[in-house]
Amino acid sequence: MIVIMNPDASNKEVHAVVDAIESVGLKAKVMEGTEQKIVGLIGDKRNIDSSSLEALPGVDHTVAISKSYKLASREFHPQSSVVDVDGVKIGDGNIVIMAGPCAVESLDQLLEAAKIVKAGGAQFLRGGAYKPRTSPYSFQGLKGEGLKYLAEARNQTGLKVVTEVTAVEDVESISHYADMLQVGARNMQNFRLLKEVGQSKKPVLLKRGLAATLEEWLNAAEYIMKEGNNDVVLCERGIRTYETYTRNTLDMSAVAAVKHLSHLPIIVDPSHGTGKWRMVRPMAFAATAAGADGLMMEVHPDPSKALSDGQQSLTPENYMEVSDGVHKIAKFMKEAGIAITTL
Amino acid sequence: MIVIMNPDASNKEVHAVVDAIESVGLKAKVMEGTEQKIVGLIGDKRNIDSSSLEALPGVDHTVAISKSYKLASREFHPQSSVVDVDGVKIGDGNIVIMAGPCAVESLDQLLEAAKIVKAGGAQFLRGGAYKPRTSPYSFQGLKGEGLKYLAEARNQTGLKVVTEVTAVEDVESISHYADMLQVGARNMQNFRLLKEVGQSKKPVLLKRGLAATLEEWLNAAEYIMKEGNNDVVLCERGIRTYETYTRNTLDMSAVAAVKHLSHLPIIVDPSHGTGKWRMVRPMAFAATAAGADGLMMEVHPDPSKALSDGQQSLTPENYMEVSDGVHKIAKFMKEAGIAITTL
Amino acid sequence: MIVIMNPDASNKEVHAVVDAIESVGLKAKVMEGTEQKIVGLIGDKRNIDSSSLEALPGVDHTVAISKSYKLASREFHPQSSVVDVDGVKIGDGNIVIMAGPCAVESLDQLLEAAKIVKAGGAQFLRGGAYKPRTSPYSFQGLKGEGLKYLAEARNQTGLKVVTEVTAVEDVESISHYADMLQVGARNMQNFRLLKEVGQSKKPVLLKRGLAATLEEWLNAAEYIMKEGNNDVVLCERGIRTYETYTRNTLDMSAVAAVKHLSHLPIIVDPSHGTGKWRMVRPMAFAATAAGADGLMMEVHPDPSKALSDGQQSLTPENYMEVSDGVHKIAKFMKEAGIAITTL
Amino acid sequence: MIVIMNPDASNKEVHAVVDAIESVGLKAKVMEGTEQKIVGLIGDKRNIDSSSLEALPGVDHTVAISKSYKLASREFHPQSSVVDVDGVKIGDGNIVIMAGPCAVESLDQLLEAAKIVKAGGAQFLRGGAYKPRTSPYSFQGLKGEGLKYLAEARNQTGLKVVTEVTAVEDVESISHYADMLQVGARNMQNFRLLKEVGQSKKPVLLKRGLAATLEEWLNAAEYIMKEGNNDVVLCERGIRTYETYTRNTLDMSAVAAVKHLSHLPIIVDPSHGTGKWRMVRPMAFAATAAGADGLMMEVHPDPSKALSDGQQSLTPENYMEVSDGVHKIAKFMKEAGIAITTL
Repeated sequence: MIVIMNPDASNKEVHAVVDAIESVGLKAKVMEGTEQKIVGLIGDKRNIDSSSLEALPGVDHTVAISKSYKLASREFHPQSSVVDVDGVKIGDGNIVIMAGPCAVESLDQLLEAAKIVKAGGAQFLRGGAYKPRTSPYSFQGLKGEGLKYLAEARNQTGLKVVTEVTAVEDVESISHYADMLQVGARNMQNFRLLKEVGQSKKPVLLKRGLAATLEEWLNAAEYIMKEGNNDVVLCERGIRTYETYTRNTLDMSAVAAVKHLSHLPIIVDPSHGTGKWRMVRPMAFAATAAGADGLMMEVHPDPSKALSDGQQSLTPENYMEVSDGVHKIAKFMKEAGIAITTL
Repeated sequence: MIVIMNPDASNKEVHAVVDAIESVGLKAKVMEGTEQKIVGLIGDKRNIDSSSLEALPGVDHTVAISKSYKLASREFHPQSSVVDVDGVKIGDGNIVIMAGPCAVESLDQLLEAAKIVKAGGAQFLRGGAYKPRTSPYSFQGLKGEGLKYLAEARNQTGLKVVTEVTAVEDVESISHYADMLQVGARNMQNFRLLKEVGQSKKPVLLKRGLAATLEEWLNAAEYIMKEGNNDVVLCERGIRTYETYTRNTLDMSAVAAVKHLSHLPIIVDPSHGTGKWRMVRPMAFAATAAGADGLMMEVHPDPSKALSDGQQSLTPENYMEVSDGVHKIAKFMKEAGIAITTL
Repeated sequence: MIVIMNPDASNKEVHAVVDAIESVGLKAKVMEGTEQKIVGLIGDKRNIDSSSLEALPGVDHTVAISKSYKLASREFHPQSSVVDVDGVKIGDGNIVIMAGPCAVESLDQLLEAAKIVKAGGAQFLRGGAYKPRTSPYSFQGLKGEGLKYLAEARNQTGLKVVTEVTAVEDVESISHYADMLQVGARNMQNFRLLKEVGQSKKPVLLKRGLAATLEEWLNAAEYIMKEGNNDVVLCERGIRTYETYTRNTLDMSAVAAVKHLSHLPIIVDPSHGTGKWRMVRPMAFAATAAGADGLMMEVHPDPSKALSDGQQSLTPENYMEVSDGVHKIAKFMKEAGIAITTL
Repeated sequence: MIVIMNPDASNKEVHAVVDAIESVGLKAKVMEGTEQKIVGLIGDKRNIDSSSLEALPGVDHTVAISKSYKLASREFHPQSSVVDVDGVKIGDGNIVIMAGPCAVESLDQLLEAAKIVKAGGAQFLRGGAYKPRTSPYSFQGLKGEGLKYLAEARNQTGLKVVTEVTAVEDVESISHYADMLQVGARNMQNFRLLKEVGQSKKPVLLKRGLAATLEEWLNAAEYIMKEGNNDVVLCERGIRTYETYTRNTLDMSAVAAVKHLSHLPIIVDPSHGTGKWRMVRPMAFAATAAGADGLMMEVHPDPSKALSDGQQSLTPENYMEVSDGVHKIAKFMKEAGIAITTL
């Protein structure tokens, strides 16, 4: 960490900063510029809160130098991680597809969706049993019943099941039915939930919060990993910006950034990322070319009858087309030796 | 709700939209413009999901007309609400001050802070026992021990206690010690938590999510109220924007917007809203003039020793100055007949 | 346009809205919902300003239905446009590459860059002679001298030249040297400049403003086209968001959105879009797969000596690798019949 | 400036950074942390472009320490500036009001508005003759004719005239009619225009760009001041965020930030800042309490007939009420000794 002093800070104020740093067992180094002095901290910064230094007289602001997350960082784990979900590998250079309806609506709907999803070459069935909805009057999911349908769909198709967990008290029961626990965008900084899934034995799909920085996102992964669960897959699903044409702004560059900053696999959700089914195909192709380890897409047997997210759900026909293209691009890039793995 | 068709939508496509609307018991009205047709829905829109209509061929997009929240809306409750927290009224035209340290750090620190807070004319002591922190390595709060210190500080000063609840399983124990439950920005859309505090008997302070729209925020209040708890106070604490000089961008206009859209009281937190103690005074004055029902401010006996948020905590001297000015402005505006109550 | 009345609007207020609409020769239709009335406008909305209707008592807000731009819209021009820049076609299904240094620094630097650019299969040389810089103390470009160097580089390589125009009074002289005029992000809503380049005979590369919506961007194109110049190519170059790791957030979905909303070609600038040379390759690949008509990339013989944007400039080696991959992906997708043209 | 190396940067890479710094006559100091090395630059950083250092191998990123603007900075000019516009002082501790219609529409409309504005105690008449509009089909202003009307209104009322200049070629003619030149949000980084108004002898009102950081804004002021014109007044008018209820998000904290960072006066425009006339009063009161040096507000004799911005224009009655309250609050705070001047 570096402490930047005001241009008119006195020597006494600089000394007070040095003292504060040394009082917690760190080393301080003063560097004198033409206009301003700065004080560098050496040692483990976890012993000191930058905000307390910023409260000292004469301090302008502080700048963090080293990253706040360690376990999730590529610096400390140069090799890319592969997450194994009951035999399906994520991050091994092959593209993984997770597809299915936004919400589990009925057993029939889910089984129909699962067959389509399977036919398109996906490895995972997605579908929400517990639905976090902006309005309390919207469909909130089938809950426990939905979990049973998911398990039934897995039995019939062999697909792995990934589904969202929205509360600490559900982690155990959902773990019983699902192969992978999804932490949704709205819960990315629900730290109690992160700790709980960190203590479970299930791999976790961690969606990016809708206004989360990359640093906050990787720190959320760190919460999970710190509890002993290293099987974390990140999922970029669009961020909130001023643009209203799309539901969110899909931050495609997050794929590249995460590959550089972290060893964890990253997948992309172009359905939530755009909010328009029409835009899923080009964004799925783009994510594949950018080096994403997988895709999550919403597919519904009849989107116009969906209880949620119909506008961004692919029809079976669209889905087959998207899936086909994605596999072709991934295969070509690998064979041509131009696939992006790390940066 | 209004469904806007593509300019080249066929009559058949328009009919399909009408059919979909009527199939759930709503009425549909077609309006023909020079370039586009639109279809209006009449009836209770909770029976239909706009996303499924957007999935129909020929549909460009839908536009919501009526608000998704009802209980929190001024339309259905024209009179401003006053929330009574064990005798202290919020929203009755007098400004309420909640102050204290970011985190409860020790009994001594808290009691010292409480005395200062009390001396400045505040009615509430704030202080976090459970701290949601971006990094798992940051100080996470004293938890149960901190709650006991808060109760002790209340006993000694008579201040009401407001403290954050971050998980469903803590609601009961925190309710035992606190007079008011705070739902923090990161949990504004933790719907399970909202339901739980909705079922408690304690008044709730609902902070705005860091990238929450006004509509999402009022829907979060709706979640609480729908469970039977009408004692909700909103707290603007800054939103996330591209500007990095301030920690957040304090959306002062939210005070006016909420007064227009809702009957619930609204207070402002200039500490988190700016992230700089220096900016707390002008923003506290501004919030008072804008018609806020109260203020939440961080005060620490010695900000340079704070375990969190030192840079935005007022020293005792600063706090007294801010508090004095706020009370003077509020009193003057009331007496001069220019205080803003509703819009 | 639709006018949404307050729930408690009186009949008199509704009539006043109808009168205001009819007074400018438009037709008004009232639609009565369960909670609110709305008034639809039929006819050419250019005769009325929505803001004046919103100023009427009882009006909550207005919603635009038809698009404000016409010439740039695909609705009125379903066929994709191909822009011909002195023989080089943009938008015909082949990917076009524009590359070169951020700024023209010297004749040697430019000629060296041009040769590399040419070797990588680019059709255009980019390079700024007039540089808009945030600080008045930064290098402002070689101006007229830089234009001459660009012309010389064209003579020696046969590359087309695209360069930025930042002021009305330079349009003529720059048109003398350049094949294509670039309007930069900061000038996207410099309407006087848009009109001036609209009156020139040169094709225009219109970069997206750094916080411009798609609608504003297409309206900026409309300004140019309204003056008679239909040769407009759009360039997505990243938008401003809260994320600070990347210089901007590259809105990859803008490629798909523009292909749907407009008939104009669109290219992507991953150099400005990310601000990091390391991220140019994955984003260039992604843009290609998403269906972009071209790419603009910064290449410098020695980025560590660049007078601007060195951190996002490719070395010659990196550039060759990016260019090679882009061409391979584009070729493969075309041959496999999965290239994205329109949506 | 500080250069932060990658954790695995070699000594050779560190030396290369040191060499690059010393090669332009600056001094370099290496500081070794536990995880990373950093290199500090000492001397005038204008000799080096940070981007070229970031292009060197082993460099992670750079951090600016000293501010890029000097003339606009309070560091180098601790005393607050007072801008004198033909006898009216801005920044001397009294609040200045600029009011009038968005656009000059006719001589009658303007004269009527001017009389109201004057009656409310304003010192300035605002009104656009050249209107930058998103759509080329919207009303673009009366241009030269509008300027004459403004001059006529000044003659009849004694109000000073402030009006927008949108192009270099208009600066001279507008200077002939106006007392103060306004640079609008869309032109805040039209650097050619900034230089031109910097060379004029007229005071300049510089609005904040709609997604401009404080640093960019103050650098825009620096462009003007560097040309010799020190009479710059800043105007906060709302920034672009994800919130759509308001037209922009009024960044009230910018008042406090600018008072800290710069010696220039700052005023607030709550009309554009909110886009809703109803919210102008609370935000005008808030800005006054926050220490703004003035206010700019849109007033129209009949907002429902306005050719632009009717929804955010005050009626004469509203305006009188706002103005009255603003003056009372300002007077009270001054007399009570709690007015905010600097921070």
